[in-house]
Amino acid sequence: MTTQAQLGALRRLGAATVHEAQGGTGAMDSAIKPLDPTMVLAGPALTVDTRPSDNLAIHRAMTVARPGDVLVVDAKGFTEAGPWGDVLTVYAQQVGLAGLVIDGSVRDSRAIVELGFPVFSRGVCIKGTAKNQPGAVGRPITCAGVAVHPGDVVLGDADGVVVVPAAELDRVLAAAEERERKEERFRAALRDGESLLDLLNLRDRLTDKGNE
Amino acid sequence: MTTQAQLGALRRLGAATVHEAQGGTGAMDSAIKPLDPTMVLAGPALTVDTRPSDNLAIHRAMTVARPGDVLVVDAKGFTEAGPWGDVLTVYAQQVGLAGLVIDGSVRDSRAIVELGFPVFSRGVCIKGTAKNQPGAVGRPITCAGVAVHPGDVVLGDADGVVVVPAAELDRVLAAAEERERKEERFRAALRDGESLLDLLNLRDRLTDKGNE
Amino acid sequence: MTTQAQLGALRRLGAATVHEAQGGTGAMDSAIKPLDPTMVLAGPALTVDTRPSDNLAIHRAMTVARPGDVLVVDAKGFTEAGPWGDVLTVYAQQVGLAGLVIDGSVRDSRAIVELGFPVFSRGVCIKGTAKNQPGAVGRPITCAGVAVHPGDVVLGDADGVVVVPAAELDRVLAAAEERERKEERFRAALRDGESLLDLLNLRDRLTDKGNE
Amino acid sequence: MTTQAQLGALRRLGAATVHEAQGGTGAMDSAIKPLDPTMVLAGPALTVDTRPSDNLAIHRAMTVARPGDVLVVDAKGFTEAGPWGDVLTVYAQQVGLAGLVIDGSVRDSRAIVELGFPVFSRGVCIKGTAKNQPGAVGRPITCAGVAVHPGDVVLGDADGVVVVPAAELDRVLAAAEERERKEERFRAALRDGESLLDLLNLRDRLTDKGNE
Amino acid sequence: MTTQAQLGALRRLGAATVHEAQGGTGAMDSAIKPLDPTMVLAGPALTVDTRPSDNLAIHRAMTVARPGDVLVVDAKGFTEAGPWGDVLTVYAQQVGLAGLVIDGSVRDSRAIVELGFPVFSRGVCIKGTAKNQPGAVGRPITCAGVAVHPGDVVLGDADGVVVVPAAELDRVLAAAEERERKEERFRAALRDGESLLDLLNLRDRLTDKGNE
Amino acid sequence: MTTQAQLGALRRLGAATVHEAQGGTGAMDSAIKPLDPTMVLAGPALTVDTRPSDNLAIHRAMTVARPGDVLVVDAKGFTEAGPWGDVLTVYAQQVGLAGLVIDGSVRDSRAIVELGFPVFSRGVCIKGTAKNQPGAVGRPITCAGVAVHPGDVVLGDADGVVVVPAAELDRVLAAAEERERKEERFRAALRDGESLLDLLNLRDRLTDKGNE
Repeated sequence: MTTQAQLGALRRLGAATVHEAQGGTGAMDSAIKPLDPTMVLAGPALTVDTRPSDNLAIHRAMTVARPGDVLVVDAKGFTEAGPWGDVLTVYAQQVGLAGLVIDGSVRDSRAIVELGFPVFSRGVCIKGTAKNQPGAVGRPITCAGVAVHPGDVVLGDADGVVVVPAAELDRVLAAAEERERKEERFRAALRDGESLLDLLNLRDRLTDKGNE
Repeated sequence: MTTQAQLGALRRLGAATVHEAQGGTGAMDSAIKPLDPTMVLAGPALTVDTRPSDNLAIHRAMTVARPGDVLVVDAKGFTEAGPWGDVLTVYAQQVGLAGLVIDGSVRDSRAIVELGFPVFSRGVCIKGTAKNQPGAVGRPITCAGVAVHPGDVVLGDADGVVVVPAAELDRVLAAAEERERKEERFRAALRDGESLLDLLNLRDRLTDKGNE
Repeated sequence: MTTQAQLGALRRLGAATVHEAQGGTGAMDSAIKPLDPTMVLAGPALTVDTRPSDNLAIHRAMTVARPGDVLVVDAKGFTEAGPWGDVLTVYAQQVGLAGLVIDGSVRDSRAIVELGFPVFSRGVCIKGTAKNQPGAVGRPITCAGVAVHPGDVVLGDADGVVVVPAAELDRVLAAAEERERKEERFRAALRDGESLLDLLNLRDRLTDKGNE
Repeated sequence: MTTQAQLGALRRLGAATVHEAQGGTGAMDSAIKPLDPTMVLAGPALTVDTRPSDNLAIHRAMTVARPGDVLVVDAKGFTEAGPWGDVLTVYAQQVGLAGLVIDGSVRDSRAIVELGFPVFSRGVCIKGTAKNQPGAVGRPITCAGVAVHPGDVVLGDADGVVVVPAAELDRVLAAAEERERKEERFRAALRDGESLLDLLNLRDRLTDKGNE
Repeated sequence: MTTQAQLGALRRLGAATVHEAQGGTGAMDSAIKPLDPTMVLAGPALTVDTRPSDNLAIHRAMTVARPGDVLVVDAKGFTEAGPWGDVLTVYAQQVGLAGLVIDGSVRDSRAIVELGFPVFSRGVCIKGTAKNQPGAVGRPITCAGVAVHPGDVVLGDADGVVVVPAAELDRVLAAAEERERKEERFRAALRDGESLLDLLNLRDRLTDKGNE
Repeated sequence: MTTQAQLGALRRLGAATVHEAQGGTGAMDSAIKPLDPTMVLAGPALTVDTRPSDNLAIHRAMTVARPGDVLVVDAKGFTEAGPWGDVLTVYAQQVGLAGLVIDGSVRDSRAIVELGFPVFSRGVCIKGTAKNQPGAVGRPITCAGVAVHPGDVVLGDADGVVVVPAAELDRVLAAAEERERKEERFRAALRDGESLLDLLNLRDRLTDKGNE
């Protein structure tokens, strides 16, 4: 089980640092962005595999969603349909979902922002969807270039989205805290006038390589 | 003639709802977006067909534009030129245009936002245009994937742009109001704890389809 | 040497006007945009040629950067890596750089905006980079479709980025001021009810061309 | 009714010439290309509107298709699914269809080429489709940027696809023949050493415009 | 161990059929295509994770490659560099590799086609690469949207590329043979004049759905 | 002056090798490809700067073209118009042009291939152009990401296009011949069973870097 402390730490550390901390894996395609740059999202993934231009599988997912879940929807990268809008957002907030990540578009973007529900998508589109395709819920998917298993922890902020396998979370968090402390030391040292080259031990490497 | 009441209703209902209400037709490509997410635009289309990287046809259109018109410009999806800038914006406001939709780019984006003139475009680009291509004004065009006839009613907001044939406007508005009332009932019911599945009568469909 | 007065004039005139004033040359691809639309950047280019997904050459550039320089980085248009983040931003501010233009992505976008450092990029991405590729600093490059020589003057604002050869700066500034004065006259005349067609002497041309 | 003579003339004249002859309208997006550059297709359109990743509407269309029809399918530009393959091709040949134009992908591309059935698509993809979306057959659609009405005449060759309204066909064919004769005269004159500038009467225009 | 009989069956069945037979999973992005449409490739994956514009990891992979392996290289979708050319092709043929799949570009395309070595790539590019990035060999990767584990079986033909987990191969092959037999029966029945609607039992579904 | 021997050497060495030999510079965007993979083109550039969807500048260029010239046209990357077709091809052959490189589309692709005239473009499109924009001939341009000066030597083959400054040609040719000899030695050695790692002296580097 992911704890609130873990999720709080993830939100504080940010997607870029967590991605580095787990060895540069788990980052979704950079086209997946929040509707508003202040949005931050963290929670375990409830995976949805849907054909583009249909949202029946999303409705199915709502029947098994638990408070705190992040809906992660592979809508196949199709941006010319919005399988999610304000009604689903209101429902998701009643259910207690932590947010939505979708490789596709959404609509009612301003209403969603006003409702304060974190949504990360590839686009915004007014075109609606049907409710005819079975789809699948709670199965491993690939979403925006990343393999996502149900229960993987998802973190999104203005920079993008990263996925951390649940079993790796403690290790990754520790590494991310360490990295954050190091970067904070760097920023402080830089403000004190130190050189980034020295902090990163890059002088030898620059000498070796020369100017190409 | 489109009335102010009709245009007010369109602006209030929003592009996504109006698009649904006319049966899922008339939506432009989702890449056409407002310069600022607060922009809303509604009015009858004055159509312009222009070759990319030239704006003589836009100037021709200004000679026949009437207050309240929305200029709808097919610039062929070319984003590396901005046939519209702050001077045309000032002129358009003098003429009383309701706004601009262009399948191309514009420039002077911040000035346009400050002037409060609604502009929906595929991009923003500093590259200017020439004034050499005849083009055509007031003829049927296809703009961002939608057939637009002069006088069709155009509605744009943060989610995108939809086009409604003038003869369909009353019917579409009635359907949109109905849809909006239904969605408002849904949102209220959801806040009272009802299930979206019941509201949408999706339980049988989910059972029939099963998890794929 | 570029003077503060020249740079101030550039910032005031804006990228679109300066681009026109130098004959429609020097504009980068319109996909290069500021992290925040209020960002404005002007200064002489310190050029960096780097392979994608590596930032060693950027670190090399920092060793020769002078206050007021704009780092112009050809990262080959690759958006799935962010060779620049908050630590480099803090360092750049210590060094006194005027800003960054990169044909690639950056990360820590919100921190960069809060630090007030102007960054113009093709994207934002959490994926980090290595420090293994030599790259080249201070050599002529092509960045986002424009040939850039070290010392060329770079100007960026909400509309995009334009590059002016240092030797052309005085001539271009004069032409841009002239153009700005003309446009201001146009805007004033339009507000007084004059026709843009008359101001631009387009009536004959429209008659000659006819409606296509 | 379109006659065999008309269709033969279209095939001989080619898509580029016919497009010019009808005033530069009716050309689909240039990404719609034949599976093999030797493919040529001409016939009246049987229109299909389908959601991406589903081909039930295509099956419905087969129930009303008549020999000589060209299936024109708006699959919404989605290339990551192939709603058409070898089985449908064999069936289409039994029915006597003249070919397929689809704003989407197909699969079994080599088998289709070997069967000699003209297919114009945006891509080739192994991903299959479901059979759950109603779709619509025989209604006006917009396909790859062109408004297509049932019965419009479709012409495709290595260069691309053009759509001619049935009522315009005679006029367009006459203009295309005239254009083809003129171009043939030009080619012959060029081979005799004449200048293209004289043939096109461009000398004055070049003088007027000067080198920019 | 994958047998020659299994690989022969895969090649005969084709990527589209195998993809369907394993439930519509494992298909790479449709932009990954063979250099020549006659190329067919089947074999176990030797996975390579490399930063774009560098091929040191590919050289490392050659040190552990076994005859029959298919090199599967995630070059991050970057098409403006070709980490593979004719020298590596000659070497690969000496080693006995079955082919290459790369989410990136290659060069020396005509020489590769003449050498008869199957290569599936996202593009062709003359720009060379460096040999400085460590990369990783024999680890799980995501390549062109598909999770690939070392030893997964890769099948590519003119339609695209599909990946089958080794443990699933027998089951998938059986399902693919069954599917192929069914499609062959369909094609034969269609040639005998039967209706595809009857063969697929779609009549009720079409009646239920109606024309949208 | 470029000699026939030099051009013959370029054609034999190929674009990828020449690009490497001049230090990895001068390669156009990889989307610029020949209409037919057997096409090879070499000659001095006659540069053309044209707005998209217009070909008057191309006609102007024909008035100054000399036998052996390669027309290099910056049509701004716009693919939805074809400013070049079969008539211009016949004329170009009368004039003796060596070929065309265009950052844009062409039409009459099959006729051009049959005429045997080398054309490298970003696309093929039936949409015609106007003859109204002045454009510029014989001035420095940036075409598909590369700065091109009049007289620079252009080489294109199935892999892409590279541009060599005339003053660099001898040096680049010598380096390319050297590189080709080395690669031929490599290919021979590989066929004799040697390891590519030894030939490239990569063993130490692989050991140093380890598997990431």
